[in-house]
Amino acid sequence: MTTYSLLILPGDGIGPEVMAEVRKVIGWFENNRGLSFDVSEDLVGGAAYDKHGKPLADETMAKAQAVDAVLLGAVGGPKYDELDFSLKPERGLLRLRKEMDLFANLRPAQCFDALADFSSLKREVVAGLDILIVRELTSGVYFGEPRGISADDTPGNEGGRVGVNTQRYTSGEIRRVARSAFELARKRGNRVCSMEKANVMESGILWREEVQWVHDNEYPDVALSHMYADNGAMQLVRNPRQFDVILTDNLFGDVLSDAAAMLTGSLGMLPSASLGAPMANGRPKALYEPVHGSAPDITGQGKANPIACILSFAMCLRYSFDLGVEADMLEKAVEQVLADGLRTADLMGPEGGTPVSTSEMGDRILAAL
Amino acid sequence: MTTYSLLILPGDGIGPEVMAEVRKVIGWFENNRGLSFDVSEDLVGGAAYDKHGKPLADETMAKAQAVDAVLLGAVGGPKYDELDFSLKPERGLLRLRKEMDLFANLRPAQCFDALADFSSLKREVVAGLDILIVRELTSGVYFGEPRGISADDTPGNEGGRVGVNTQRYTSGEIRRVARSAFELARKRGNRVCSMEKANVMESGILWREEVQWVHDNEYPDVALSHMYADNGAMQLVRNPRQFDVILTDNLFGDVLSDAAAMLTGSLGMLPSASLGAPMANGRPKALYEPVHGSAPDITGQGKANPIACILSFAMCLRYSFDLGVEADMLEKAVEQVLADGLRTADLMGPEGGTPVSTSEMGDRILAAL
Ligand SMILES: CC(C)[C@H](C(=O)O)[C@@H](O)C(=O)O
Ligand SMILES: CC(C)[C@H](C(=O)O)[C@@H](O)C(=O)O
Repeated sequence: MTTYSLLILPGDGIGPEVMAEVRKVIGWFENNRGLSFDVSEDLVGGAAYDKHGKPLADETMAKAQAVDAVLLGAVGGPKYDELDFSLKPERGLLRLRKEMDLFANLRPAQCFDALADFSSLKREVVAGLDILIVRELTSGVYFGEPRGISADDTPGNEGGRVGVNTQRYTSGEIRRVARSAFELARKRGNRVCSMEKANVMESGILWREEVQWVHDNEYPDVALSHMYADNGAMQLVRNPRQFDVILTDNLFGDVLSDAAAMLTGSLGMLPSASLGAPMANGRPKALYEPVHGSAPDITGQGKANPIACILSFAMCLRYSFDLGVEADMLEKAVEQVLADGLRTADLMGPEGGTPVSTSEMGDRILAAL
Repeated sequence: MTTYSLLILPGDGIGPEVMAEVRKVIGWFENNRGLSFDVSEDLVGGAAYDKHGKPLADETMAKAQAVDAVLLGAVGGPKYDELDFSLKPERGLLRLRKEMDLFANLRPAQCFDALADFSSLKREVVAGLDILIVRELTSGVYFGEPRGISADDTPGNEGGRVGVNTQRYTSGEIRRVARSAFELARKRGNRVCSMEKANVMESGILWREEVQWVHDNEYPDVALSHMYADNGAMQLVRNPRQFDVILTDNLFGDVLSDAAAMLTGSLGMLPSASLGAPMANGRPKALYEPVHGSAPDITGQGKANPIACILSFAMCLRYSFDLGVEADMLEKAVEQVLADGLRTADLMGPEGGTPVSTSEMGDRILAAL
């Protein structure tokens, strides 16, 4: 029997609470579906800083490189706001992404039928929404050099400073994430819309040309369009269902995927997968995490919605272990509890529902399985 | 009597059509309010390229520097898609912004009562929305050096290229646009929310620190908050009315202001002002333009909505000439025609209205004046 190795990094804030529910789900699949997982757990973010003085210990990084998949909760919190840039909780996450070379970040924005009225957008605009944002995750302005803050005395800035970051993309970086987007599109609506600012940035021109090249040479069967990122933001608000797969860079992807997530009205529902190149065993390097953050305001109150983290594990079943049937089961169970009217605090809209705590929600999902 | 000098640059697509209506409005103020304007007209964008082989002639640039205010229609169109980067219509606009040093771009996102149902967002989320985005317009990744595309042979990119742009902000650049935002906030709700990605970009850290500095030293009476730009995009979708003035950089401002514009559901309604330092006569260098683009798909059909361009002229009256009374008059006249149910094609929602052409809309606004 195959044993799948998992590293769980609950992180900060509500991370440990939602991850506890994922643990239950993992247990369920072991007991009821004959799967075998080898689960270890470690620290990331503020929790790692508290223990090791840095947001990701080298031993943890080594473990992450060795396992089949990493499951991450959330990082960050007000306690760490004053830390130096290099020690901030976020750096732990960014180090994982960069050193594991997780270049393709998959962020589905899906509107669950039972929750359509929960969006700030009109039901008829978002009902049935199902788009997938593929965001480049290991390059661009997040990692480009030179970067930093230094003294600067140019005219108009006497005695001042200058802050610099570098947006930098190579053909190879663009092509590999484009391939991910085209592959995924083939399994969905077969359409990719690529977004950049080729009208003002040369890196955007290169982005557009390389995406077009991959399309023309390798995926001519997929419908490809290009859009300026500002227009993309508009179109997401105006009529998000026009999209199937959206392909974009690290920074635009950060902003646009959050806007897209909020369209669904239920951030507590949205999972993500970050995938790299195949390892020796054929599985991609992979990290799965909910789109929501550490939510310090509700930490420790049993109010957190564990569904985003549980659906991230469903993505893990699908993308890391090719267990599509099990992933479907888990996703169906989530739909079931929603249809049954069960609601964590974040999902309590005017139309009511049965309020449940974090762990009750986990239990009900197990029951639905 | 003071004569105000204006340079009109209608540009491409629907630019000339909507600007023709502004011309009528200018005439009305001359005939009925005793104002005197010295109006000249010239080319920008594709129209300038067609005549001069570049998107802004040096003589036009010189004229723009000499007048009290520039009114611009729109630039761009599919005809110019294949042009080299340096010749694209957008470069004409970017040159105006840069050489006139128009560092503060004011983009109000206002939801007109008569049009609230037109938004893709629920009425209760957007009714009464009135936010102002102040976007830095002359620096950041739009203009930073080094930039460009070159050959690159680093491992994984053999035979490939690399595209580079530089995000660069000085203390002085951040402080001056922050001052604009605080000044404007004092005349409105007295709140500024500044947006960046200080969690991943050093230029964002500098941005946050300098904005805080200007606040603490010069505008302690204004309420200041900071938000990461991705969360900003979410919050704009979730609950836009939480904001008063949003202050952000050139690139985030481009994306976020377009998202904010679309919240109102009526892009054809939204004006903008781009302001620089005071000239010898005390007036700021200034350029006014609608937020919408050149809309090649409806060009020449009398379908364009002239209101965004007319309201841009209202901003000109207010910010360049301190003619607040006249600006109010013009804005009221626009509200009047909307309340009367007059609708250009872009404003025809399910609830109907009286369809009017571009020039009929202009005439009705004159009548309402
Ligand atoms: C926490 C932060 C560093 C991160 C990012 O900016 O990528 C987050 O916003 C995300 O989108 O995963
Ligand atoms: C036309 C383009 C260069 C411009 C920009 O990116 O600034 C436009 O999108 C805007 O927002 O005014």
